[in-house]
Amino acid sequence: MRISELAATTGSNVSTIKYYLREGLMPPGVSRGATQADYGPAHVHRIRVVKALAEVAGLPLHRVREVLRLIDEPGEDTFSTLGRAVAALPPYLHDAGAQESESGTDYPLARAAMESLGQVFDPGYAAVAQLERALQAVAAAGIPLGDEQLAVYGRSLMEMAEYDIAGIPGEPAATVEHAVLGTALYEPVILALRRLAHQDAAARRLGDPPRP
Amino acid sequence: MRISELAATTGSNVSTIKYYLREGLMPPGVSRGATQADYGPAHVHRIRVVKALAEVAGLPLHRVREVLRLIDEPGEDTFSTLGRAVAALPPYLHDAGAQESESGTDYPLARAAMESLGQVFDPGYAAVAQLERALQAVAAAGIPLGDEQLAVYGRSLMEMAEYDIAGIPGEPAATVEHAVLGTALYEPVILALRRLAHQDAAARRLGDPPRP
Repeated sequence: MRISELAATTGSNVSTIKYYLREGLMPPGVSRGATQADYGPAHVHRIRVVKALAEVAGLPLHRVREVLRLIDEPGEDTFSTLGRAVAALPPYLHDAGAQESESGTDYPLARAAMESLGQVFDPGYAAVAQLERALQAVAAAGIPLGDEQLAVYGRSLMEMAEYDIAGIPGEPAATVEHAVLGTALYEPVILALRRLAHQDAAARRLGDPPRP
Repeated sequence: MRISELAATTGSNVSTIKYYLREGLMPPGVSRGATQADYGPAHVHRIRVVKALAEVAGLPLHRVREVLRLIDEPGEDTFSTLGRAVAALPPYLHDAGAQESESGTDYPLARAAMESLGQVFDPGYAAVAQLERALQAVAAAGIPLGDEQLAVYGRSLMEMAEYDIAGIPGEPAATVEHAVLGTALYEPVILALRRLAHQDAAARRLGDPPRP
């Protein structure tokens, strides 16, 4: 298809697609003369991925490029590629100084939580710093995460994670793409569903349900 | 205590506290002469709440004020106060035009999801628009939420929500404050725990665990 059809199919502007091409975010089409090129399903797919990362998940361009490189060249160790890909997603924590203190890497709250849940504690994994920061914030606000609460959250989230991981494709590039899009785009779904679950549970508890 | 002690206790600057006072985000202290005022535990608590909302959850000032007003004057219907308070939290969806179409309020994806989960569908609740948007995004990226996946997510999140709601205080003002802080500050905890659960489940599935 021509670039105008590619734009129509993906709901993009031609100028946006040209920008993606110029920035190397997608491979060029097959040349059909000096001013025309032909695009196929792989281009449609790539545009959807770029739009999801840039426009929906809000990644800056250099992060989008980083994720695409990991999708295109996942390397031999898919597990560590996954870690790098997910680390390219927001939130971006800025006080990198806290990561390597003089006594080595230290995330006391996150470490305690992982030990309590019986999960591996890998301080190099980006979500560990994210958890430490989040646990500091709830403690500072006077609503620290309790042991029982952590156990309930950990069990429920592991149930969801097991389901997600069972569905990942076998092929490394597809695995990385799936994990990145799934992490970035399902997080808003989960937060909205959680707020709706709260509403449902609160209606039952407060005996004051909304009008149907 | 004096304002300098209040600042030290809450890890704030005196100028920040004066700003909160000027903006009416906290009640004045008890006057101790022309230039001094005395502050107590209620001020310490209020500063923690304001900081959590403004600095951690990232609410703009007018939203912080809105939440504080709902905490201070929860009204007779705690359930609907809760809805308004949670609606003051991010994400803020800008295309309000989509909310009231000519054929009335319409969130087809969110409605189908709520019906499938057997939960109340209340289009006036802010999280419904949030869910609709999130479900549109996963569909556009080619990874729509499947029925089985929705069932797994819905069940796990309801388990967490039931636990949260069982722990809310009985007194309306405390309930509203607890719900707002819990929603805003536990969401980052949950997303970090989910990424860590994925890492744990992926390590088992890919047979390539990180070095302990």
